[in-house]
Amino acid sequence: MSPRDDLLPRGPLTAPGLARIRGRIWGLEKQLIGEVSRLGLGQPDTIALWYGESDQPTPAFICDAAYKAMRAGETFYTHKRGLPELRQTLATYMAGLYGVPMDMERITITMSGMAAIMLSFQALLDAGDNCAIVAPVWPNCSQGTEVMGAEPRRVALELENGVWRLDTQRLMDACDERTRAIFVNSPGNPTGWMLAADQQREILDFCRRRGIWLVADEVYARLVYDRPVAPSFLQVAEPDDPLLVVNSFSKSWAMTGWRIGWLTHPVWMGETISSLIEFSTAAVSVFTQRAGIAAVSEGEPFVAAMLARCRAGRDTVVPRLQAMPRVAINPPSAAFYAFFKVDGVDDSLAFAQEIFHKTNVGLAPGSAFGPEGEGSLRLCFASSPERLNRAMDLLEPMLR
Amino acid sequence: MSPRDDLLPRGPLTAPGLARIRGRIWGLEKQLIGEVSRLGLGQPDTIALWYGESDQPTPAFICDAAYKAMRAGETFYTHKRGLPELRQTLATYMAGLYGVPMDMERITITMSGMAAIMLSFQALLDAGDNCAIVAPVWPNCSQGTEVMGAEPRRVALELENGVWRLDTQRLMDACDERTRAIFVNSPGNPTGWMLAADQQREILDFCRRRGIWLVADEVYARLVYDRPVAPSFLQVAEPDDPLLVVNSFSKSWAMTGWRIGWLTHPVWMGETISSLIEFSTAAVSVFTQRAGIAAVSEGEPFVAAMLARCRAGRDTVVPRLQAMPRVAINPPSAAFYAFFKVDGVDDSLAFAQEIFHKTNVGLAPGSAFGPEGEGSLRLCFASSPERLNRAMDLLEPMLR
Repeated sequence: MSPRDDLLPRGPLTAPGLARIRGRIWGLEKQLIGEVSRLGLGQPDTIALWYGESDQPTPAFICDAAYKAMRAGETFYTHKRGLPELRQTLATYMAGLYGVPMDMERITITMSGMAAIMLSFQALLDAGDNCAIVAPVWPNCSQGTEVMGAEPRRVALELENGVWRLDTQRLMDACDERTRAIFVNSPGNPTGWMLAADQQREILDFCRRRGIWLVADEVYARLVYDRPVAPSFLQVAEPDDPLLVVNSFSKSWAMTGWRIGWLTHPVWMGETISSLIEFSTAAVSVFTQRAGIAAVSEGEPFVAAMLARCRAGRDTVVPRLQAMPRVAINPPSAAFYAFFKVDGVDDSLAFAQEIFHKTNVGLAPGSAFGPEGEGSLRLCFASSPERLNRAMDLLEPMLR
Repeated sequence: MSPRDDLLPRGPLTAPGLARIRGRIWGLEKQLIGEVSRLGLGQPDTIALWYGESDQPTPAFICDAAYKAMRAGETFYTHKRGLPELRQTLATYMAGLYGVPMDMERITITMSGMAAIMLSFQALLDAGDNCAIVAPVWPNCSQGTEVMGAEPRRVALELENGVWRLDTQRLMDACDERTRAIFVNSPGNPTGWMLAADQQREILDFCRRRGIWLVADEVYARLVYDRPVAPSFLQVAEPDDPLLVVNSFSKSWAMTGWRIGWLTHPVWMGETISSLIEFSTAAVSVFTQRAGIAAVSEGEPFVAAMLARCRAGRDTVVPRLQAMPRVAINPPSAAFYAFFKVDGVDDSLAFAQEIFHKTNVGLAPGSAFGPEGEGSLRLCFASSPERLNRAMDLLEPMLR
């Protein structure tokens, strides 16, 4: 159990006055990537590999679709769950990708993958509940549970011979009668780890038996190097299963700045999700949704080029890291991160800050992804080989 | 006190499985405006006056600023709290509007006014807390408290000789030791009611003494007919007061569909709000923020034209309503709504639906704004006099 909210230390007193903010919110851990990246504010010679985004701007055909919609006057309030055209486009897209039937009534457009996660938590987590989270994992999902007054319960992946794997029994053992959800991000940020289909079946069966929701963050589904697409829970689930699948336009279509994603859910949850969207941000702008339609309908060559860019980035960075005696890493088979342990490093935040001061290369500290990541660093390789080689030249003296 | 969350009826069972959603979320009341407006989906001859938006699309100079930013490659992740340029632009704008000093460190850009409200509730409301809300009021703020597991505690405005007024003593009496916030929307939707400066001082003093936050929704600040700008809590407060002021680009700049607003808060809360944004949607897209800069910097003629349009709309609609014996209304001095009681109507939802079936004119039922609004209808008059007169011609037989 989490400590009772009213026993947590609350924020500072306002002056004048006595008002304070929630203790749980005041005590939220900072996003540690920001503790490094703010060092680079206003420094033009930074090689920023700390965030999860490529060095490619959004392609022109996507921007043009947005502008065309704006100028056609599509600037009013719209359907809370998104344009039917975009929802149908995504249903067709996912049906093709996964070889399963997909009803557009299962799809709701959200203000980013993160927004889809927060909406899921709002629907599922009362104060005092808990959510099991497979870790290390990008930090925001864990703090999202705490915003709802719930407890994140981390279940660590195991690193065996350089390969990350999940002991599903440990995951199931971490759940109790107040567990309302399991959160799994596969392919995983930061590790590039992927669940296998038989593990997905096992976890889903457990959720069905125990009345636990599965929140599956699958935003890296298309960034996979050893097969056409990552295994999805949608391939092993029934339409009415307690499953919420989070997707995003950010990674494959270079739309990180746009804030658009989608949630796949049982049909009966559509109205609930619609209300929660109404009460948090209301709908994604129509012109951004038109950009999304263009991305999915005409973007396959771009997605292929993005994957090729990431593969080239991986094949540039990983061999150079492997050649350094202090560094341990295997080539990840998915996502666009090199997540590597550095021998002798026990404070990855301080080390990432030191690296930035000495080299202007921005890396994310492993501790940003939880205690399981301490001692490691994360490098986003969704960049040109030239830029990555320049970064590696600068990093080499620090990591050798 | 709200009922304990684990005693509330939860959502339906999933099939296969046992999983349910939160009872509090399953039990959330639907947005009743949508119960009328969905009747109009796909009906091109609808005269939709149900939503709070004008019939004007966003002006071209604002759209062009967004497109220019997109094509310049401003499509990446950005500052969680918003572009410093936009925050400074807004600080200067508010300092000029209200004649008070304003530090840009007090300003954070949000994904709409509603998002600013939800971020405020996330910062302030633990499960079991309550929030006093001056009503009738637009519905989403009340449901936002419930998403956080808190209790909305409504305090009704009084209608005296056709004029809405707040008994501040009743508001203060409604607060107890679990009251963490007071929510006031002034100028008010749907009533067009406005707080006077002396009442603002009284409420703020009470909040200081009792350690209660004031969440002030001031999105209609510029749509005022009897003075240059509505009184703002910012004019009576100190920078460190327990005050959160919600603003939006939606109403004055015809940007309802864009989803951009801002929150003014004590400087020390900046990092907390930044974290909450990170864990809900991340930042507003850079190109939308560039549109916001254009709106504030070059939009004063448009704001003046919007106000003139609303004034003409008010002066078209209100006299015609006043001429109907069953209708009671005074011209509102702010916002862009006619909110009028219709003699003999005790189910405003059914009546609004009947009106739509018979006339194709879309009005919002008063009950959408709480029990205080039952028996009334809301009409948004931010339209051309021609369109409004056509609507009034159709409505007249139903309201006479």
